[in-house]
Amino acid sequence: MSVNPPNQKHPLPVPGFKVGTASCGVKSPALRGKRQDVTLIVAECACHAAGVFTKNRFRAACVRSGEKTLASNSENVRAIVANAGNANAGLGEMETVWARQLIETGAEAAGVVSDSVLSASTGVIGTPFPIERIQEKMHEASDSLAADNWEAAAHAIRTTDTFAKWSSAEIEIEGNRYTLTGIAKGSGMIHPNMATMLAFVATDAPIKAAELGPMLKRAADRSFNCISVDGDTSTNDTLYLLSSGIGLGHAPLADTSLFEHALTELCIELATQIVRDGEGVSKFVTIEVSGAACEADARTVGRAVAVSPLVKTAFAGSDANWGRILSAVGNSGIAIDTNRITLSADDVLMFEKGNLHPDYSDEQGMAVFSQDEFTISLDLGMGDAQATVWTGDLTHEYITINAEYRT
Amino acid sequence: MSVNPPNQKHPLPVPGFKVGTASCGVKSPALRGKRQDVTLIVAECACHAAGVFTKNRFRAACVRSGEKTLASNSENVRAIVANAGNANAGLGEMETVWARQLIETGAEAAGVVSDSVLSASTGVIGTPFPIERIQEKMHEASDSLAADNWEAAAHAIRTTDTFAKWSSAEIEIEGNRYTLTGIAKGSGMIHPNMATMLAFVATDAPIKAAELGPMLKRAADRSFNCISVDGDTSTNDTLYLLSSGIGLGHAPLADTSLFEHALTELCIELATQIVRDGEGVSKFVTIEVSGAACEADARTVGRAVAVSPLVKTAFAGSDANWGRILSAVGNSGIAIDTNRITLSADDVLMFEKGNLHPDYSDEQGMAVFSQDEFTISLDLGMGDAQATVWTGDLTHEYITINAEYRT
Repeated sequence: MSVNPPNQKHPLPVPGFKVGTASCGVKSPALRGKRQDVTLIVAECACHAAGVFTKNRFRAACVRSGEKTLASNSENVRAIVANAGNANAGLGEMETVWARQLIETGAEAAGVVSDSVLSASTGVIGTPFPIERIQEKMHEASDSLAADNWEAAAHAIRTTDTFAKWSSAEIEIEGNRYTLTGIAKGSGMIHPNMATMLAFVATDAPIKAAELGPMLKRAADRSFNCISVDGDTSTNDTLYLLSSGIGLGHAPLADTSLFEHALTELCIELATQIVRDGEGVSKFVTIEVSGAACEADARTVGRAVAVSPLVKTAFAGSDANWGRILSAVGNSGIAIDTNRITLSADDVLMFEKGNLHPDYSDEQGMAVFSQDEFTISLDLGMGDAQATVWTGDLTHEYITINAEYRT
Repeated sequence: MSVNPPNQKHPLPVPGFKVGTASCGVKSPALRGKRQDVTLIVAECACHAAGVFTKNRFRAACVRSGEKTLASNSENVRAIVANAGNANAGLGEMETVWARQLIETGAEAAGVVSDSVLSASTGVIGTPFPIERIQEKMHEASDSLAADNWEAAAHAIRTTDTFAKWSSAEIEIEGNRYTLTGIAKGSGMIHPNMATMLAFVATDAPIKAAELGPMLKRAADRSFNCISVDGDTSTNDTLYLLSSGIGLGHAPLADTSLFEHALTELCIELATQIVRDGEGVSKFVTIEVSGAACEADARTVGRAVAVSPLVKTAFAGSDANWGRILSAVGNSGIAIDTNRITLSADDVLMFEKGNLHPDYSDEQGMAVFSQDEFTISLDLGMGDAQATVWTGDLTHEYITINAEYRT
């Protein structure tokens, strides 16, 4: 089940990068040769890089090691090695050993030193990590390295995703043309503050690591941290951004605002693809919060609506139950004045400044809520800040996926 | 659906109190004469009283007025008037008018002044409040006032509850015997910080309002604020405690600790009955958190586990998916050291100080999780504080109730 997955063009190659995949049978030896499950992204020059990680206190070893590498070596990143099928998490001391072995295997296949390699793992928690199966087949990834291989990588990082997720953009800045290409995976355990979600973005726009870091954080706050499927945050969430531009000889950009805009849009595109593929999601709902005292307040209110089981089941039932939405707003913890709140669904005004709108009828609301995509707009009347959050509904299918199968 | 509802004795009368009910057809005129939906609790003397209310910012008029009455008149409360079938919430300015009319109608029926009357409403949000139907039939409530009528009241405050909830206790303090009787309702929108939950507790133990307030807050924090069905908090949640003892001529208790213990136990009994009757709940799970740095931390961790959709669907699926529990602990926001955490299910040790226990097998875990009641124990290894939280599973039935019916 997914809601209107994008029917999009192939991802664009990014100057300086090659991508390869391998079929290692990470989840089970029986899958070897049947699906690609290891991805290798290699840069031909030193990249400036940044990362955003899960805020879960149980952080998998790959997250801890990625953070460490970026802290010491963010201007000399050469590769990302990623696997699906096993999160290498919840495994105690062996986790760290296996994560290092994954990085060493990736470094060898990429022909670079291991402290220039970032890693990411996704899949089941608590099952011993089959490093030997990866070591055995990693050569397939180096053998298949190619500039136009991003789509294969988007497939290889999937776990329960029903479609592969990518997005590309081209921008012209100061007379030069640059590319951004990103791939992402995630469908369960999706929630603000990074979900079981991996996303890797590569660009040849020349920007220093010191600027990439805060920029990526802002872009994540407006994209991946604004989506919710089920309110859970995983142990392994990772977003990496690699820039080859300076290594390729470009002068660093004087003004990064155009790039940041393109990066944010690309992250939003990847993030909303994740919601469209959310476990059991049958509706894609955009929640626009305006009139907030600050952007953080707007986002908090949007998230409170996006995670409320009562709101999400109302979406599932095509029930324009505005009382549940207002109750969720009231639960957000943000200071609000209920007499200033205005609520619409698409272009139907439901609730205006504390009162049900006299022209509103349940039929109008139901007509909006019965669509597979619609927008809830909330004006808090407290200021000028706004934020957008994207969410899905909570369906029987979600229960079936999560109660009946082990993920 | 409910999990092992208690098969209990009738509630005990409390000296100084009489209870009556009426069938007003609040939800629909067609229900008039078919179910009792208005409750009147009358004290024959001035009561000392306290209340705990929803933290939702959309607070219904009854909550605002109850708070106001307790602020000015907490040593002279004479009655509670409550209705099921309409929350009188989300209705703008008329809400306040209707809430006042409900109180006036109750005061007249009780024969007391209106500023000594507390009110509470529960039911659908956003439907005009049918005060005239209540005014018309309120005489039934005064006509039926009787000391042994608590069970009828427990039935009359229900909305979607499948069984009526009450609890009684007798305690001996300083040579006198006192009674506590409480009734409660709630099954959907149940979450810490007070759910769509009403609970009224009456006692003849002589305690001043100034002491009842903080005591009730502590008892609520350890009972009603430790339960979760779906993570939503309603606009109308109300817990009232009325004490007739001083009005009946008893000297105020010098030591209230025995009473507070009994009150807390009674609130826990009412709160866990609410979980057992949670919408779609098929399992009753106790989450014991120990080794926390402080009680608030322990409660936060317990709640994080209790509300996680992935944990709750694992409960539903009888899947001993300990990774989801640890991930929820990591998401709680509390400072933890993953290498100190120990996790058990009933007497099966699963995870010990950061590592899966070598003797643990999935079969053992599944045997525990397949029961309809079990206990998850988490030792954080950070200190000596502990807390207990009670929750249910997340089932298809919950989706059916909330997606297919308007509540």
